[in-house]
Amino acid sequence: MEELIAQIREATGTNVGIDEAKRIIASFLAAGDFWAALPYVDQPFNVAAETAKALFDRGLVEFKNSEILFTEKGKKWLDEQRIQPLIISTCNNCGGRGISLQSFSGLLKRFKELVKDRPEAIVEYDQGYVTPETTVSRVAFLAQKGDIQGKDLLILGDDDLLSIAAALSGLPNRVVVVEIDERIVNFINNVSKRENLGIETINLDLRNPLPENILRSFDTFWTDPPETVEALELFIGRGIAGLKGPGCAGYFGITYAESDKFKWRDFQKLITGKLGAVITDMITNFNEYVNWDYLLETIRNDIEPLTVYPSLNWYRSTQFRIEVLKDTPVYNEPATGKEIYVDKDALVFTGMDREEK
Amino acid sequence: MEELIAQIREATGTNVGIDEAKRIIASFLAAGDFWAALPYVDQPFNVAAETAKALFDRGLVEFKNSEILFTEKGKKWLDEQRIQPLIISTCNNCGGRGISLQSFSGLLKRFKELVKDRPEAIVEYDQGYVTPETTVSRVAFLAQKGDIQGKDLLILGDDDLLSIAAALSGLPNRVVVVEIDERIVNFINNVSKRENLGIETINLDLRNPLPENILRSFDTFWTDPPETVEALELFIGRGIAGLKGPGCAGYFGITYAESDKFKWRDFQKLITGKLGAVITDMITNFNEYVNWDYLLETIRNDIEPLTVYPSLNWYRSTQFRIEVLKDTPVYNEPATGKEIYVDKDALVFTGMDREEK
Repeated sequence: MEELIAQIREATGTNVGIDEAKRIIASFLAAGDFWAALPYVDQPFNVAAETAKALFDRGLVEFKNSEILFTEKGKKWLDEQRIQPLIISTCNNCGGRGISLQSFSGLLKRFKELVKDRPEAIVEYDQGYVTPETTVSRVAFLAQKGDIQGKDLLILGDDDLLSIAAALSGLPNRVVVVEIDERIVNFINNVSKRENLGIETINLDLRNPLPENILRSFDTFWTDPPETVEALELFIGRGIAGLKGPGCAGYFGITYAESDKFKWRDFQKLITGKLGAVITDMITNFNEYVNWDYLLETIRNDIEPLTVYPSLNWYRSTQFRIEVLKDTPVYNEPATGKEIYVDKDALVFTGMDREEK
Repeated sequence: MEELIAQIREATGTNVGIDEAKRIIASFLAAGDFWAALPYVDQPFNVAAETAKALFDRGLVEFKNSEILFTEKGKKWLDEQRIQPLIISTCNNCGGRGISLQSFSGLLKRFKELVKDRPEAIVEYDQGYVTPETTVSRVAFLAQKGDIQGKDLLILGDDDLLSIAAALSGLPNRVVVVEIDERIVNFINNVSKRENLGIETINLDLRNPLPENILRSFDTFWTDPPETVEALELFIGRGIAGLKGPGCAGYFGITYAESDKFKWRDFQKLITGKLGAVITDMITNFNEYVNWDYLLETIRNDIEPLTVYPSLNWYRSTQFRIEVLKDTPVYNEPATGKEIYVDKDALVFTGMDREEK
């Protein structure tokens, strides 16, 4: 086991412990497939991939496409290490979100129709969009928390097209989208005009401050920042700057796929410390991302499972909800030219940064 | 609205904002019943109670037993304030936990039989136990995370009898309970002996350090601390001191009923800061408590709903899971004589402290 851990640590530059490695292996055992295990490993993609490779290098597993099969030697080793499979009990009815879509089935159907010809995810802005079920679950979550009905909603980055689902529900008073990608701005504008949804869009790079006329104007913000501490601080800071004040809420997703647990702790310290908000909810694996076209081109391909396009959506994130308190500070400084997309855990290197890294 | 907020603030000594008060009122509207609304108000019990009273004082609602009915004047006021009901979409299948009990139905049945004659909750130790479904959901959650199968489990305070459900599942390698209440220690010992479960018990007040022979010995701890910063630091600190090291996990519940959001933020800063752990999961309303016998004797009774024993379980808590990292420090100092049960948000004043407060 020590040797195996040493290999993972060296190859990934992380500090993975024995219990963490055992949890990854227990996920492989439970799912039997590399991609299907990923929502449960709770570790960066690269760490999971290297663990599969380390098992393979020692003859403990074989691969068959993306399947991971333990060999006889592997089975004996599992017994010695007392590693047993995870028992995955994710609720079938709600996909583990805890929130039923029953009251929103009409919305889901209509939303799917409207976004059929949506712009595809592109590498330049670190995009990747969630399933329609996820987007509508977001509306349901907002509605359960009272953060959308009669409320003013600010969406910072919207390749998931939450603005369309939110406006279609008829619940919000106002929906404003700030988005860097002109293709998405145009798509939202077209749908909004055709369906009379009244969505307002602003084409802006969030490294610039929020425009004065939308500061302190919203009850709720939603964003999905790139997973670096810099981006999180920037996006959530902008979101908070858009809120009216205490009791207003912010929503965003964080993955394990691109952030190890040290970074998660840094995020949590940042949110509750410098940013001064409280974390009220965290829903594990809430956000299910549709596999993006450029996936296999951008990841390593040194073991068989990584050369097989996944047959299911594997990229998930935990949905955070935060609330602003009386003493929460407001930041809206420019961060022009700042690198916000890439750090050591990044799964995908954006066009401009790939060479350097 | 300002007057109403002022009354709530003055009567409760809190800093409730307009959006927070609106969320409480939106919960009353959605549930139509004081007790049924409580899992959704996300505020201390006393703040919810005072909000109901403030609405009543202004003729905006009437009470019928524990029902809250908006008057004509109240309905007009709701329109003016743009307050709409929460849309509660909690999944029926999993009770909103996201985890199905399907694989554990046999365990649930057997657990219910074994704990039929459990000790009742007593005020002295701030007790109140969760439903059997909750206890077995804890086992399912542990198993989904790989924190119980083949693992050594430490339970700090166990009026919920998790030790019995865990041992009955046959999953853990070792289960140790540290518990202050001799009645519970005896009950667990009796069941364990009769059913040959091998649970180890230690009768100890956690203000004392953990015994040397169980330090750094466990993969997982579970605790349910009283809701003061002092108690949280003490209980979680003890739990971490019992863990083997990085990658090991801790579980505990926190409510809104007894902790406002400033205290939640303090908890989160404590966990990620001084205690040095990362929060990996938070499952809202995971823990459902059975109404305890002494409930109505210990709360205010100045409005009608508070004089009617609730017909459903209303007291919930959010289930936290944390993980220990490589740099997480270990504390095990004595805290003898320290007040850990009561602060301004406490719902129930324990025997020894009620007079002073």
